[in-house]
Amino acid sequence: MKPYTEMTREELAEEIKTLRAEYTRYQNMGLELNMMRGKPCKEQLDLSMGMMDALSSTADLTCEDGTDCRNYGVLGGIREARVLIGDMMENNPDDILIFGNSSLNVMFDTVSRAYTHGIMGNTPWCRLDKVRWLCPVPGYDRHFKITEYFGIEMIPVPTSETGPDMDMIERLVSEDPAIKGIWCVPKYSNPTGYSYSDETVRRFARLKPAAPDFRIFWDNAYGMHHLYDDKQDYLIEILAECKRAGNPDLVYKFASTSKITFPGSGIAAMATSPNNMEDIKSTLRYQTIGHDKVNQLRHVRFFKDIHGMTEHMRKHANILRPKFEAVEQILEENLGGLNIGSWTKPRGGYFISFDTMTGCAKEVVARCKKAGVQMTAAGATWPYGKDPYDTNIRIAPSYPPIDDLKKATKLFTLCVRLVSAEHLYAQSEKSAEKAEASAE
Amino acid sequence: MKPYTEMTREELAEEIKTLRAEYTRYQNMGLELNMMRGKPCKEQLDLSMGMMDALSSTADLTCEDGTDCRNYGVLGGIREARVLIGDMMENNPDDILIFGNSSLNVMFDTVSRAYTHGIMGNTPWCRLDKVRWLCPVPGYDRHFKITEYFGIEMIPVPTSETGPDMDMIERLVSEDPAIKGIWCVPKYSNPTGYSYSDETVRRFARLKPAAPDFRIFWDNAYGMHHLYDDKQDYLIEILAECKRAGNPDLVYKFASTSKITFPGSGIAAMATSPNNMEDIKSTLRYQTIGHDKVNQLRHVRFFKDIHGMTEHMRKHANILRPKFEAVEQILEENLGGLNIGSWTKPRGGYFISFDTMTGCAKEVVARCKKAGVQMTAAGATWPYGKDPYDTNIRIAPSYPPIDDLKKATKLFTLCVRLVSAEHLYAQSEKSAEKAEASAE
Repeated sequence: MKPYTEMTREELAEEIKTLRAEYTRYQNMGLELNMMRGKPCKEQLDLSMGMMDALSSTADLTCEDGTDCRNYGVLGGIREARVLIGDMMENNPDDILIFGNSSLNVMFDTVSRAYTHGIMGNTPWCRLDKVRWLCPVPGYDRHFKITEYFGIEMIPVPTSETGPDMDMIERLVSEDPAIKGIWCVPKYSNPTGYSYSDETVRRFARLKPAAPDFRIFWDNAYGMHHLYDDKQDYLIEILAECKRAGNPDLVYKFASTSKITFPGSGIAAMATSPNNMEDIKSTLRYQTIGHDKVNQLRHVRFFKDIHGMTEHMRKHANILRPKFEAVEQILEENLGGLNIGSWTKPRGGYFISFDTMTGCAKEVVARCKKAGVQMTAAGATWPYGKDPYDTNIRIAPSYPPIDDLKKATKLFTLCVRLVSAEHLYAQSEKSAEKAEASAE
Repeated sequence: MKPYTEMTREELAEEIKTLRAEYTRYQNMGLELNMMRGKPCKEQLDLSMGMMDALSSTADLTCEDGTDCRNYGVLGGIREARVLIGDMMENNPDDILIFGNSSLNVMFDTVSRAYTHGIMGNTPWCRLDKVRWLCPVPGYDRHFKITEYFGIEMIPVPTSETGPDMDMIERLVSEDPAIKGIWCVPKYSNPTGYSYSDETVRRFARLKPAAPDFRIFWDNAYGMHHLYDDKQDYLIEILAECKRAGNPDLVYKFASTSKITFPGSGIAAMATSPNNMEDIKSTLRYQTIGHDKVNQLRHVRFFKDIHGMTEHMRKHANILRPKFEAVEQILEENLGGLNIGSWTKPRGGYFISFDTMTGCAKEVVARCKKAGVQMTAAGATWPYGKDPYDTNIRIAPSYPPIDDLKKATKLFTLCVRLVSAEHLYAQSEKSAEKAEASAE
C-alpha cells in the first residue's frame, strides 16, 4: 500500500471509510484485552511453582553459616542469597544488600532517605530549595511517579538506540548542583527494549557531577531477560566501571527476581559501593530488623546457582519470544511502509516502544480502549505523564495469551491507521482551506 | 534473709565477700547466654514448620476472588488475609492494610510519610521547627530509635500497672500542638508485660489533641500472646472505642505474625480508619505495587482461621510459660524480701521488667556480661537510651533453653545482690564518713 503521507485527500477519505467499517466490526466483537503492564503471563508463573516445594516442613532452614532463617536478624541478607543475586547482578556478594519483595520500594526508600536525611552527610533534600532529576525519555512511569511524589523537578533527556543523550547529561550534571539523580534502565530498557552502548556506560561512569550527592539510579530490571539464546545484549558492569573511573560511590544499582520467579513474592536487591552501603545500613537498622530470609533461602534452594537461574530464564524466553515476534510481525504487516509509525525491535525485556505521528498517541490509545483493548496511557512514558509530542505508546506483549495478543495488536494497528488517516485528512483540509482563503 | 536495707555495715561486708566468691565461681563457668532480645526459641519456630507445606507446587495459588497471588497487584492485601488478620486484631477486614514482613518497618514508614508529606493534608513534619512525642517508660527501644532518627523530641511518661499516666498525657497533648504522637504497647506491654486498663483505653480514645495530626501509634504486638489459658488480659478495642468517642482518625494500630509464625517471614498489618487508610494508600501506591501475597496466602492456608491461630498460640504458651515461671521463681527465691529490686509478673508477652535500686541497673548488666550473660542494655527502655534513675532492666526469657535460662537468671540475681550490697555499703561508708566529720 501507498504511504499515507503520499495519499491524496480523496484516497485518505476512501481509506478512512474502510477503516471505520473495520473498527466497528472490532467494537462488535466485545473484546476485553489488556496490554497495559509488564506482567508475566500464567504460563510464566507456572515455571516457578517448584519454588513452593523448595522448602518443606522437614527441611533444615539453616544457612551455611549456621543462621536460622526462621528467626530475627541478618540486616543485609543471607550469604548464599547475596552470592546468587551477586551472580545475577554481576557484582561481588559483599556489595549486595537484599531487601524485601519489591525493587520499586527500595528505590522509593532510597529517594526518601536522601530527602529526610541526605546522602553520606550531605544536606537532606527536604532542606533544599530545589532538587532536579534527569529522566531519559521514553522511560518508566513508576520511576517518574517517585520523583514527582517528592516534589523533584524532572528534566526529560532524549534517548536513542545507544541510550540517553550523554552530551546533554554531562553538561547538565556538571553545571547544576541541584541535579541529584537520574533514572536509568540500562538493559532492555523500559519501554524501548534497547540497551546502553559501551560508550554510554563508560561516559556514565565518568560523569563529574556538581552535586556530591548526585547518584545514578541504575535499575537493571531486565539483566537476565533475553529473548534469544544467540542474540544477547551485554552491558558493561557499571559498579566496576565506576570504580575503575575513580567514581566508586556514583551508582545505586537495583534488581529483583520479580520477573524471574513471582512478581510481588520475589526478592529485591541493591548493589553499591561500601561507602554507600554503610550509609544505607545506618538508616536501615532503624527501619527493620531484617527482610524475609526464608524467602531468600527458598530462592537459593530453588535455583541452586546462577546456571539454574539462566536455564530458568530460557523457559521464560521460550514463552515471551513468540509473543514479541507475533507483535512485530503484525506491526510490520499492517503498518510497514505507511510512514505513520515506528517501533523498536528489542532482544529482551518486557516492552516494545511505538511512536505514532506527532499528536496521535492519545487518540490511538483512546480508540483501542473503546474497542476493548487497554494500552498503557499515552504520556505515561514521560515525566508528569505528559508527552509533549503525543507520540509514544508502550506495548506490553507478555500478559495476554498469544491469540488475544494477536487480536489486540491487529486492533492497535487498525487504530494507528485510522487515527493517522484522520489526522492527515484534517491537515489536508486545513491546507485546502488556507489555499482557498488565499485564492479569494 | 534480712533485707539488705536493714543490714549493718559489717553484715553487708560479710555478704559482699560471700557474693564475690560466688560470682567468681560463675565467671569460671564460661557461660555464653543471651537474654537480650525477645526472640522465639527453636522449639517455637518448629511449631510453624507446617507453613512450609501449606502451599505446594501443585497447589492453586488463587484467592477466593480469583486473584492469582503469584502476580503483581492488590495494594492492601488479599481479602482472606485481611479477614484472618482482622480477626487477630479484632478489626473489620476493610479496616486492615497488609504490608510486608515487619511491623517495625510499617511504623518507620508511617513516621517517615508524616515527616515528608504530612498526615491528611497537614504540614509535613520536616517543615516544622519542632516535633515532640510522648514515650511511656519503660518502653520499647526500637520505637524510640525511630523517633530519635527523625529528630523528634521525646518526652518520657511514667507508667503503672494500668498503663501510662493519663493525666499527664491528656494535659500535654491538649496544650502542645507540637506533640504529634505517642508510642503505645497496650497489651502485655514491652517490657512490663502489663496491659492497659479499661479506663486507660477509654481516656486514650477521648484525647483532645491540640495537633490535628496527632496520632496514637498503638503497637498491639502481643495481642494473642497469652501465657495462660484461664488468666488472660482483654483490652478494649481502640479503633471501635475511638469511633464511639467521635475520634475515628486518632489511631494507627499495628500488629504482625512475627512471633506467631517466623520472625522476619511473617506478615505485618495496620488497622485504621477509612480516612487514614485513604491517606496512606495515596503514598503506598508510589512505594510499591503490592506486598508478598504468596506469603499472605501461605499464612491463611496454614491457620485456616482465627481458631487455628488461637490453638497455635497455646502451643507457644506451653513453651514460654515454664520459662516465665522459672524466672519468676528464681527472682522470688533469691531476691524476695531483700528490698533491693522489684519485678513484674505478666500474664503474656515476651518480657519481664525488673527495677533495681536507683543507680544500680547499668552495673548489674555489666556484671552479668562479665560472667557471660548478655542482657538488654540498661537504659534501653528509655528514650535516647538514658534511664535517669538507672533502675530498669528488661528480662527476655524466651530464647535460651530452660536450663540455660535458669543459670542466667541465677547469675542475674547474684549480680543484683552483689551490686546492691556494694551500693548500700558505699552509701553507709559515706554516712559514716559524714558522721565522723561532724563529730570532729
